Amino acid sequence: MAFLVFSLSNLALTLFAAIITAFISPAAAGSGIPEVKAYLNGVDAPGILSIRTLIVKIVGSIAAVSSSLLVGKAGPMVHTGSCIAALFGQGGSRRYGLTWKWLRFFKNDRDRRDLVTCGSAAGIAAAFRAPVGGVLFAFEEMASWWRSALLWRAFFTTAVVAIILRALIDVCLSGKCGLFGKGGLIMFDVYSANVSYHLADVPPVLALGVIGGILGSFYNFLLVKVLKVYNLVNEKGTFYKIFIACTISIFTSCLLFGLPWLVSCQSCPSDASEDCPTIGRSGNYKKFQCPPGHYNDLASLIFNTNDDAIRNLFSKNTDSEFQLSTMLIFFVTCFILSIFSYGIVAPAGLFVPVIVTGASYGRFIGMLIGSWGNLSHGLYAVLGAASFLGGSMRMTVSLCVIILELTNNLLLLPLIMVVLLVSKTVADAFNGNVYDLIMKVKGFPYLETHAEPYMRQLTVADVVSGPLQLCHGIEKVGNIVHILKTTMHHGFPVIDESPHSESPVLYGLILRAHLIALLKKKAFLCTPVQLGADAFRHFSSDDFAKKGLGNVDKIEDIELTDEEMEMFLDLHPFTNASPYTVVDTMSLAKALILFREVGLRHLLVIPKISSVRNYHIHFPNLIPHSLS
Amino acid sequence: MAFLVFSLSNLALTLFAAIITAFISPAAAGSGIPEVKAYLNGVDAPGILSIRTLIVKIVGSIAAVSSSLLVGKAGPMVHTGSCIAALFGQGGSRRYGLTWKWLRFFKNDRDRRDLVTCGSAAGIAAAFRAPVGGVLFAFEEMASWWRSALLWRAFFTTAVVAIILRALIDVCLSGKCGLFGKGGLIMFDVYSANVSYHLADVPPVLALGVIGGILGSFYNFLLVKVLKVYNLVNEKGTFYKIFIACTISIFTSCLLFGLPWLVSCQSCPSDASEDCPTIGRSGNYKKFQCPPGHYNDLASLIFNTNDDAIRNLFSKNTDSEFQLSTMLIFFVTCFILSIFSYGIVAPAGLFVPVIVTGASYGRFIGMLIGSWGNLSHGLYAVLGAASFLGGSMRMTVSLCVIILELTNNLLLLPLIMVVLLVSKTVADAFNGNVYDLIMKVKGFPYLETHAEPYMRQLTVADVVSGPLQLCHGIEKVGNIVHILKTTMHHGFPVIDESPHSESPVLYGLILRAHLIALLKKKAFLCTPVQLGADAFRHFSSDDFAKKGLGNVDKIEDIELTDEEMEMFLDLHPFTNASPYTVVDTMSLAKALILFREVGLRHLLVIPKISSVRNYHIHFPNLIPHSLS
Repeated sequence: MAFLVFSLSNLALTLFAAIITAFISPAAAGSGIPEVKAYLNGVDAPGILSIRTLIVKIVGSIAAVSSSLLVGKAGPMVHTGSCIAALFGQGGSRRYGLTWKWLRFFKNDRDRRDLVTCGSAAGIAAAFRAPVGGVLFAFEEMASWWRSALLWRAFFTTAVVAIILRALIDVCLSGKCGLFGKGGLIMFDVYSANVSYHLADVPPVLALGVIGGILGSFYNFLLVKVLKVYNLVNEKGTFYKIFIACTISIFTSCLLFGLPWLVSCQSCPSDASEDCPTIGRSGNYKKFQCPPGHYNDLASLIFNTNDDAIRNLFSKNTDSEFQLSTMLIFFVTCFILSIFSYGIVAPAGLFVPVIVTGASYGRFIGMLIGSWGNLSHGLYAVLGAASFLGGSMRMTVSLCVIILELTNNLLLLPLIMVVLLVSKTVADAFNGNVYDLIMKVKGFPYLETHAEPYMRQLTVADVVSGPLQLCHGIEKVGNIVHILKTTMHHGFPVIDESPHSESPVLYGLILRAHLIALLKKKAFLCTPVQLGADAFRHFSSDDFAKKGLGNVDKIEDIELTDEEMEMFLDLHPFTNASPYTVVDTMSLAKALILFREVGLRHLLVIPKISSVRNYHIHFPNLIPHSLS
Repeated sequence: MAFLVFSLSNLALTLFAAIITAFISPAAAGSGIPEVKAYLNGVDAPGILSIRTLIVKIVGSIAAVSSSLLVGKAGPMVHTGSCIAALFGQGGSRRYGLTWKWLRFFKNDRDRRDLVTCGSAAGIAAAFRAPVGGVLFAFEEMASWWRSALLWRAFFTTAVVAIILRALIDVCLSGKCGLFGKGGLIMFDVYSANVSYHLADVPPVLALGVIGGILGSFYNFLLVKVLKVYNLVNEKGTFYKIFIACTISIFTSCLLFGLPWLVSCQSCPSDASEDCPTIGRSGNYKKFQCPPGHYNDLASLIFNTNDDAIRNLFSKNTDSEFQLSTMLIFFVTCFILSIFSYGIVAPAGLFVPVIVTGASYGRFIGMLIGSWGNLSHGLYAVLGAASFLGGSMRMTVSLCVIILELTNNLLLLPLIMVVLLVSKTVADAFNGNVYDLIMKVKGFPYLETHAEPYMRQLTVADVVSGPLQLCHGIEKVGNIVHILKTTMHHGFPVIDESPHSESPVLYGLILRAHLIALLKKKAFLCTPVQLGADAFRHFSSDDFAKKGLGNVDKIEDIELTDEEMEMFLDLHPFTNASPYTVVDTMSLAKALILFREVGLRHLLVIPKISSVRNYHIHFPNLIPHSLS
C-alpha cells in the first residue's frame, strides 16, 4: 500500500515534468549547464534561453526533484539564472509584453553574454548558498571570455544573491517556510574546531583522490553511453521520451522501496540528538519496517531529502549510525540511479547526485579505514564528495570554494585541495569534463582556447572553402538578394572595383543582418552613386540593434518588386571597413588563437600583401607572446 | 634608557635594510607587487626579477619588518615568489652557477610569464596562509593574460604551499619555532558559531563601507603624494635615500614610544585569558609604565607583532579591553606611519599596514556604535579591515576569500561582500587602485584591456611614426648592422622586391634578437641567393632561445670585418612569415584590443589590400563579439 502511494506519486510528478518538458520546451531537459556553456562560447542554439524554457525549467525541476528521482537542482538553477539574464539582455520579451525601455542598452551580444555569465554565477550561488563559489564556477567552467570588470559584476550579482538568501533565512527562522533555510547560510555545517590530522592521514586521502578520479571518469563514460542510447530511443518520438521517463521513475521507486529490506534494523542510540525512530517527517532515524526502538539506516538515507542525506553523511558524530553494507548499497544505488536519471526528458542537475554518490563512497572508504586514521567518517565523506566531483567535473578552485562554503571547514582546505588535484589529474588521463562530453553528445561545437597539434601543420589556405561570395561597394539589389538566398554565410567581404578604384580593393566586411536591415528599409538608389554619411538618414540605431531570440528577420520575408531588384545600394556606409585579415600562409593554429582570443566571428584570408607601407605602432613594448 | 635601546635597535635594522637595498639592488625597494604586475603586463624592467633582488628582498624585508616600521611582508613575499619563479623561467642563473638542463624547456616568455603568475599566487598563499585567496589574487590583481590551464597550475602551486605550511605548523606545534605557526592554519580565527546579525546591523555596515572607501582613496592619494616627494629627494643620491629611511625610523620610534604616555592605564580584568600585565613576551596586556595590576591598552597594541595586534583587534570577547581614545590614536598613527614608511628604500609591503589601519578604524566605529548594533567590536574590526582594503586595493573576490581564510568566519560572508563592493565603488569615484597609482609614479607603462574613448576617434594611421626601417628578404650584412645600430625597434618588416618578386611584397617580420643571433653566427653568403631549410644547418634551437635577464647580446658587441659587411644574409628562413597586420583605417581602439588580447608585441599597419582573394574559414560560428 505504502509502496503504491510512494511509486504512484513519484510517477505522477515525473510524468508531469516529462510532459511539460517534451511538449512545451524540449530545450529545458537535462542540466542546462552544457547549453549555457556552449552559448557563452558562441553557439546560439534556438530556444535555449527563451521565456518558455525558463518557466518549464523552474516548474519541471521542482516536480522532478520532488519525485524521488536522483536529480539535482543546481544545474537547472544555473540555467534559470542564465535565462533570466538573457531576458534582460534582449530587452525583455516583446511576445509576452515584458519589455522595458532602459533594457535596450543591453541589446548587444557582448552585454548579453556578460549578463548570462553573471546569471550562471547567481545560479550556483543560490543553489549552494556559495556566493564566491558561484563567481568562480562561472569563471572556471562556464565563461569563454572574461574581463576583470566582468569578475566584479559577477561578484556583485552573487553578493545580492547572498544578501537576499540571508534575509530570507532571517525571515524563515520561525520555520514557517518548511525546509527552506534549514542549516542557515551553510548547508552542511561540519565545522569542528578540533579537526586535526597528521602525515599518517595523507596516504588514505591520496588513495581517496585516486579512486575518486577513476570512479569519476568511469561515471562520465557510462553517463555518455547511456545518453547516446537515450538519444536513439528519443528520436523515435515524444511518446518514447515520456515512456523512458516513466520507466526510470518506476524503476527508481522499486529500488528505493525495495533496498531497505536488505539491511538489518539498528537499535536506536541512547544519546540520540533527535527522537528515534522518527516518523512522518524528514529526520535522521527512519523506522521503516523495524520494531519500536529500532531504525533502518538505509531508509533514513533514502527517505530523506537529498540535502538531509548529504548532511547525515557529512556530519561528524555519527560514526556508529551507519553499517558498512548500507553505505556500499547506497553508493551503488546512487551511482546507477544518477546515471540513468540524467538523460530523461526533464530538468535534471548533476551536482547533487554526484555529491551524494561521492559522499557515500567517501564514507564507505572511511569506514574501511576505520580507526586506523584519525579523521571522522563525516570528513571522509566530505573528501569523497570532493574527489568524485573533481573526477567528474574537473574543476579546481571553484569546487574547492564551493565545498568550503558548503561545509564551512577551513582547516580541511589543504586536504580538499590535494584530493581535488589528484582526482582531476587521474581522471583527465581517461576522458574529459562531464559537461564537455554532454556538449559533444548534444552536438554543440565548442571552440577551445588551445589549438590541436595537427593545426600547426595546416595553413588557413588549406581549410578555406569556396566559392567566395562577395558584394561590391555599390551593389545591385538583385545580386544582394541572390547572395543572401543562395548562401548561409553571416558576413560577406565588400570589394571596390573600377570605376570606384583602379584595382579591386577589399573595402571591408558586411553582416547578413545588416544587409537584411537595408533591404527592409528599401532606401534604394536608382543609379550607382556613392552617398556619404547621409545614407543613415533613413535609419535609427534600433534598426541595426541585435534582435531578440526567435524574431530574426529572414530574407524570404522581404518582398521586392522587379524594378526594386534593378536598383542599387551603397554598402560603404554600413560596412565594417577594418575587418580582421590574415595572410593565407598563416598557420591554422595561430588563426584559431586570434579567432578565439578576440572573439571573432568572421576572419578574412588574403594573399601575401604587396605594395607595403608599414610602421610600428608605439604601444608600450609587450613581452613577445608565443603567438606574435 | 628603554627608549634608547628601542630606537637604536630599530635604527640599526632599518639602516641595514636600507643600505643593502640601496647598494646591492634598488629594485628590491617597496612592495614589489607593482613591478611584478607590470612585468606580467609586458614591461620587462631590468633587475626586477634577478637573483640579487631576490636575496635583498628576503633579508631586507625581514630586517624592515622587525625594525618596528609599519611595513608589511605580503608584498615582498609576492615579489620573492615571482623572483624564484622567474629564476626557473630563465633556466636558472648561469652567473651563479645555478642552472639545470631540464629548465631549458621553460626558456620562453610564455612559460616564464605563467611561472611568475604562479609565484605571485604562492606569495600571498604563504603570507596569509590563504591558498585559494592567493590564486584569486594572482588572477584578479596581477595577471594580464589568463588561461584556465594557468588557473589549475596556480591552484596546484598554492596547494603545495598550503600542504607545506600545514606540515610545518604540525612540526612546530611543540613551539620550538618561536611565533611561527601560532594560530595554526587560520591566522586570525574569529569563528563564533553564534554570530548573528539582522537588518538593523546593515546600515552601520554600509556606513563602514562608505567611510572605508573614502579613507582608502584618500590613503592612496596621500601615499602617491609622499612617494613623489621621496622621489625628488632620492634623485639627489643614495645618501639621501638612506637618510630618509633613518629619519622615518627615528620618527616611528618616537611616536610609538611616546604615544602610550597619552592614554590612561586600565585595571586588569579579573577574568583575563592570560596573566595580566604581561611582561617580556608578546601578549595581550602590556604593563608599560602602569602600576601593578594595570595595563596600557595602547602599548599592548603597539609593542606587539602586527599579527598579534590584528588578532587582538579582531578577537571577539575583548570589547572592554580598549578605550575609544586609544583606538582613535592607534588608527591615526597607523594611517600616518604606513603612508610614510612605504616609500623608503627598503622592502615594504602594504597589505598588513592597511589591515591594521582598517581594523583599528573599524573597531573605533564599532565602539562608537556600541551596543546599538549587536555585532561585537571584533567583527566591526574585521569589516573595517575589509572596507579599508577594498577602498585602497579595489579587489573584490580575492580580498573576500583572503579575509575569509584569515578569519574563518563564513557567516560574515554576506556582510564582507557588501562592505567590499560599497567601499570599492565609492573609492573608484576618486582615484585608482593603489598598485596602479604606484606603477604610474614609478613610470611603468601599463596596457589596459579596455580602450580609452579618445582612441575610438583615431585610426592606427594617426599614431604610426616613421621613418620605416625594413629589411629585404636577402639583405646586405652592412645594412642590417646599420638598421640595428640606428634604431631601437625590436622587430623589422621583411620585404621581397624584384628580382625575387615582381612587385614589392611584405614577406614577414623578423625580430632584432634573431638578427643579432644571425650576425653572431656569421654564416654569411657571398652572393644574394635563397638557401632553403638547410639555412638552419649552422644553428641549434638554443641560439634562438630567450636569453636570461641581463645577458642579452648587443649589436655593439659584434665585430664584423669590412668584407663581411659586404656579404649577404638570407632572412627568409628566420622570418615570421605570417605576422599580424591591420589596415591603416582601423580604429586605434580596435587595434589596441587586438594587441592586448592576443598579447602582441609588433603589429604591422598596411594600406587597404588590393588584389583580394578571400574566403570564410569555417570555424563554428561565434557570437559576433563587439569587436568583430
